Amino acid sequence: MRLPSHIAIIPDGNRRWALGHELKKTDGYEHGLSPGLSVFRLAKQYGISEITYYGFTVDNCKRPPEQLKAFSHACVEAVKLIANEGCSLLVIGNTKSKCFPKELIPYTSRTDIAGGGMKVNFLVNYGWEWDLSGIGEKKENSKLQNVIHSHNISRIDLIIRWGGMRRLSGLLPIQSVYSDFYIVDALWPDFKEEQFCEALNWYEKQDVTLGG
Amino acid sequence: MRLPSHIAIIPDGNRRWALGHELKKTDGYEHGLSPGLSVFRLAKQYGISEITYYGFTVDNCKRPPEQLKAFSHACVEAVKLIANEGCSLLVIGNTKSKCFPKELIPYTSRTDIAGGGMKVNFLVNYGWEWDLSGIGEKKENSKLQNVIHSHNISRIDLIIRWGGMRRLSGLLPIQSVYSDFYIVDALWPDFKEEQFCEALNWYEKQDVTLGG
Repeated sequence: MRLPSHIAIIPDGNRRWALGHELKKTDGYEHGLSPGLSVFRLAKQYGISEITYYGFTVDNCKRPPEQLKAFSHACVEAVKLIANEGCSLLVIGNTKSKCFPKELIPYTSRTDIAGGGMKVNFLVNYGWEWDLSGIGEKKENSKLQNVIHSHNISRIDLIIRWGGMRRLSGLLPIQSVYSDFYIVDALWPDFKEEQFCEALNWYEKQDVTLGG
Repeated sequence: MRLPSHIAIIPDGNRRWALGHELKKTDGYEHGLSPGLSVFRLAKQYGISEITYYGFTVDNCKRPPEQLKAFSHACVEAVKLIANEGCSLLVIGNTKSKCFPKELIPYTSRTDIAGGGMKVNFLVNYGWEWDLSGIGEKKENSKLQNVIHSHNISRIDLIIRWGGMRRLSGLLPIQSVYSDFYIVDALWPDFKEEQFCEALNWYEKQDVTLGG
């Protein structure tokens, strides 16, 4: 089976899920934790090299404070869950802003956990403008990919987005220029393993041209 | 009807169409000219403000020379066709490379034709790395959007890609961070007006959050 080396996950739909279950919007995020761990384990089983989770963004921080608190907390919990498993963990985002959860500072350089393994990246208080602003300090002849803030995250082969929206929402613009984009209509808390497997089956049928 | 202000068109599938019609790959491109003009006229009817055509890229220039010649010629013809209609025309791409068709140099600054009107952008010998390399010369506090080579092209609301592939293939990474992405499975030379209209109907049902 031709597998993607690097998969990015956009875990969208937590708030809609909560409203659909007569919960408050802020109650949705914790129902996204277990799917995150399931995807991690599945990806590891398949032998995927690298996985990136779209946690929350600088844009998201404009939402009401109770939502910010809820998704920030869920993000910290999600990282902690994964940090219990063997992997090579990296949290990337604007640490200079007060929205960045302090508990995650230790992971902002890549950390091998329990012997290392699959690279796992979490985008936390990530912003595409923040990311690309590294280019301003670029020396002539250095590659764009090497000077962005997310330079430790490789090119993405497959993006899987839950929740039905067909957009990147600012996810890693440089790493996603050639990515294949797969949409799951189900909301993220309704994650099922077969959705992930179907995305891989679909990916296998795509050609890889890298724009050529 | 809530319409997108700016639509980008990825007219993919010309070579596959040619092979499916027992033609040489290079014969496909000319069959994409008439769809390009149809989309222009439709967009104008709907009152769309700006439309961008993904012509060819720096990546595409690695293809065999007879293909390069064919798609470059088709691109020049496509621009000429549109230049017969009233619009505000701009061709964007790396003019310093020998792959850039000299005939299009006059349109590399925005030109009002027959009284102007809808903004029409053609990406010709466009490269995302070339585009973003403008950021290297950025002054502090200037916006990223204002220093890229494509700074005269605005944020894209809706990307419509023909030919079934679900990827950006390097299209304007900055302008597409929040774009909605609609895929038509039909190949570009099999363009039909209803595909465009269905894309607009679908777009109307999406919410606009700009990442918020």
